[in-house]
Amino acid sequence: MTVKDMGCRTNVLHLLSDEAKIRKASPIKTTMKYFSDPNIVFLGAGMPSGNMFPFESISFKSVSLDDVNGTGAVEGCIHRDKSDLEICQDVPLGVALQYGNSRGQPELISFLKEHTSIFHNISINDWDLITTAGSTQAWDACLRLFCNRGETVLMEEYTYSSSLEAAVAQGLNCVAMKMDKDGIKVDKLSEMLRDWDVAVQGPFPKLLYTIPNGHNPTGCTLHEERKPELVRLASQYDFIIIEDDPYYFLQMNEFGAPELNVPGDVNEMQWFKENFVNKLGRSLLEWDDVGRIIRLESVSKTFAPGCRLGWAIGPRYLLDHLWNYHEVSMQSTCGFAQTLINGMFQRWGQIGYMKWLLRLRNSYSMKRDHCLTQCQKYLPNEVCSINLPISGMFFMVYIDPHKHPKFEREFKSKVDLLEEHLYNSFVQNGMLLACSSWFRVDPNHNKILAFRGSYASVDAEKMQNGIIMLGNVIKAEFCL
Amino acid sequence: MTVKDMGCRTNVLHLLSDEAKIRKASPIKTTMKYFSDPNIVFLGAGMPSGNMFPFESISFKSVSLDDVNGTGAVEGCIHRDKSDLEICQDVPLGVALQYGNSRGQPELISFLKEHTSIFHNISINDWDLITTAGSTQAWDACLRLFCNRGETVLMEEYTYSSSLEAAVAQGLNCVAMKMDKDGIKVDKLSEMLRDWDVAVQGPFPKLLYTIPNGHNPTGCTLHEERKPELVRLASQYDFIIIEDDPYYFLQMNEFGAPELNVPGDVNEMQWFKENFVNKLGRSLLEWDDVGRIIRLESVSKTFAPGCRLGWAIGPRYLLDHLWNYHEVSMQSTCGFAQTLINGMFQRWGQIGYMKWLLRLRNSYSMKRDHCLTQCQKYLPNEVCSINLPISGMFFMVYIDPHKHPKFEREFKSKVDLLEEHLYNSFVQNGMLLACSSWFRVDPNHNKILAFRGSYASVDAEKMQNGIIMLGNVIKAEFCL
Repeated sequence: MTVKDMGCRTNVLHLLSDEAKIRKASPIKTTMKYFSDPNIVFLGAGMPSGNMFPFESISFKSVSLDDVNGTGAVEGCIHRDKSDLEICQDVPLGVALQYGNSRGQPELISFLKEHTSIFHNISINDWDLITTAGSTQAWDACLRLFCNRGETVLMEEYTYSSSLEAAVAQGLNCVAMKMDKDGIKVDKLSEMLRDWDVAVQGPFPKLLYTIPNGHNPTGCTLHEERKPELVRLASQYDFIIIEDDPYYFLQMNEFGAPELNVPGDVNEMQWFKENFVNKLGRSLLEWDDVGRIIRLESVSKTFAPGCRLGWAIGPRYLLDHLWNYHEVSMQSTCGFAQTLINGMFQRWGQIGYMKWLLRLRNSYSMKRDHCLTQCQKYLPNEVCSINLPISGMFFMVYIDPHKHPKFEREFKSKVDLLEEHLYNSFVQNGMLLACSSWFRVDPNHNKILAFRGSYASVDAEKMQNGIIMLGNVIKAEFCL
Repeated sequence: MTVKDMGCRTNVLHLLSDEAKIRKASPIKTTMKYFSDPNIVFLGAGMPSGNMFPFESISFKSVSLDDVNGTGAVEGCIHRDKSDLEICQDVPLGVALQYGNSRGQPELISFLKEHTSIFHNISINDWDLITTAGSTQAWDACLRLFCNRGETVLMEEYTYSSSLEAAVAQGLNCVAMKMDKDGIKVDKLSEMLRDWDVAVQGPFPKLLYTIPNGHNPTGCTLHEERKPELVRLASQYDFIIIEDDPYYFLQMNEFGAPELNVPGDVNEMQWFKENFVNKLGRSLLEWDDVGRIIRLESVSKTFAPGCRLGWAIGPRYLLDHLWNYHEVSMQSTCGFAQTLINGMFQRWGQIGYMKWLLRLRNSYSMKRDHCLTQCQKYLPNEVCSINLPISGMFFMVYIDPHKHPKFEREFKSKVDLLEEHLYNSFVQNGMLLACSSWFRVDPNHNKILAFRGSYASVDAEKMQNGIIMLGNVIKAEFCL
């Protein structure tokens, strides 16, 4: 369906970039409806013959899930032809590796839409879902979709460095939004928008970017009470929201709480609804009744980053424009990724996938608990503080620069110089943390001394040794 | 190595876009050198733990190659850990699916560089190769790398519609280069550049885009004698060349010639050098001694389009900038595609891969011969003509509009109206061809009546029936 068909619906097409407004759907795309018509000799597209694809089949085996939430190991083989498929929701290699289906393979899209409907009550009726090559690609594409050079993007005052770099290189005016431990300070944002001064702050914002859960780099999570107000501001001041939410399923158990496991004798879907789905934060999409929000999800944190598979959820009329851009850039998400991950999904089913997500949740909760326990134990609280993350893979070590004996004399009271010095000290002593300045949207403002750590990939013993070492370096540096 | 390290080398950095000039390498990238250092507790990057990737292993089986060039079927299993690998050049899943290696997995890059060195004598010393998500993605990225809004790109007068659409949407001034059956008319290009009028034609060209082999849509191939002159013009007038060459290995045997097969008792590498490699057209890279050409290759036509795996070859200092862009957009090529295709490559070896390419060559030659034979037999040569393609998957049916009885009266001598009418007639009669107007760079110029066909994916019998049908429709339309 094209935008014209949408009739009287309120939309935000006026917020598209010049580029997106010019870009047309490919005329060749219109011929694809004839591709599988047996009455048509299709010489229209430059599609190699499927029987010249060198892969006869690919197979996969999942890890064995032998804990209480396990669904057992699954395995599958994806053949080239539809007629040889093990299960009918598989995407045969001959289709997965061919041109076409640039929105994503229907079997995968269908699974993901069902999954989305379990977790989110999306307000608008005509929502859709298309695959991406992960959220970093999708964010770059969204910027191209909405922003012209010089226009303004609102970002959390610290944000994912690649997201920032993408926007800065495109010549966009990135304006920082104040945060606290509950994410964007929506009251401050409201004031900033009310008092917006074009001469000082640049053009009025066109787009707001947020990482609501397990925020990178701060580890904080946007409070539920702030969400409706944030969407209301987007509506009042007419801007787009991009909700980049790769850490949604890394919302953790309470600190120190035991693992959350499915009891043996329950209706599993009902149990998941009550004990998992309903306990998670809501997507901003739930408050959007116009269709001005695009939500980005990804398997980078639930499967693996190298899959380069994600998806965008939002109003169909905006995703049509994203689709048009994809057709003349990445074309489609990798067919291997789609057919393999779809193969796993179809064998797990929705409940099996939720069990996997629960397993992840328990695993990250345990890692977080261990890491934070070590921090409480070994970091000197006279100069260090740490926010407890309730989602994601990051935590921040905040350090009071004024307590460093050489801060004024040797580092001229410059936080960035002390940051660099401490970063090098940590590395020399065998501990690598990321500098918060790498993530700072406004380079001239808010010079907090802080380092980002991640408990995602380091094992328990190494983590303990690392934190002990970190504590020792800080104590030595601060003469404690 | 950074650009600064390159010392006195001549380069074309002044031709980078504003966006590319601003874009910095990610600071987090600099920490990756510590990732595998056993003395460092690495809390720096948000990398999920490899033992939380749900894929334990993936396996693949190639088609069986039982003809004379066959290397036999190969199969392999890629495990998660390095220690379980079948062969040491495999990329373990734990690495392929992790962050890092955004230029491409070293094992794959190494195979592709060796392959490149067999086929091309690249002039510059410091050339490199990085993976892409296919040439459409790479072309979009190259435009972002070099062109600012309003700048001029030279394109063949007909070109791949997605390449054109990408450039037009970015607000670029796309100027058509005249072609004949041997590709770009380099003499006409030279005159155009000499007489360039900024007031009429827009800014002086910054970039030239060409599809030298099996040109899409015309099917023509750039003549060898024109290549050095084309590169010389780029040097004289200081612009970049993007050589988009997905059809390189679809250079075919002579029309009607028998299959080319490896004899049983020869030094295979030497045989391939003499009978295959040396008979293929040369890359423009062979004449580039400055480093102003980027060559785009892809497995879309040699493996399958859905792999979304390609690579760019060019001077390292320009590919570094492409890399910086990839890091904040697609991040890396899909890990499944990389590890699976690398797995196939490593088991085939260079010679096995060349056997596969030879098989493709024979297969396309046969399809082309069959298709063109039918065209000669069934299309009315009073109104139709066809260029014989020597590479690629496309042919063009040129039709003389003036011989259509209703051309002047009913179609007001407008080629596009007759084109649309004929397109619909063809479809109604069960034959789908693409309209040449879909590929036309200058919409106001060069109104040739022509349709693009492809012999790539239709079997012999269907092809014959289709061409007979096409001939009948044309005869009826032109009252022959």
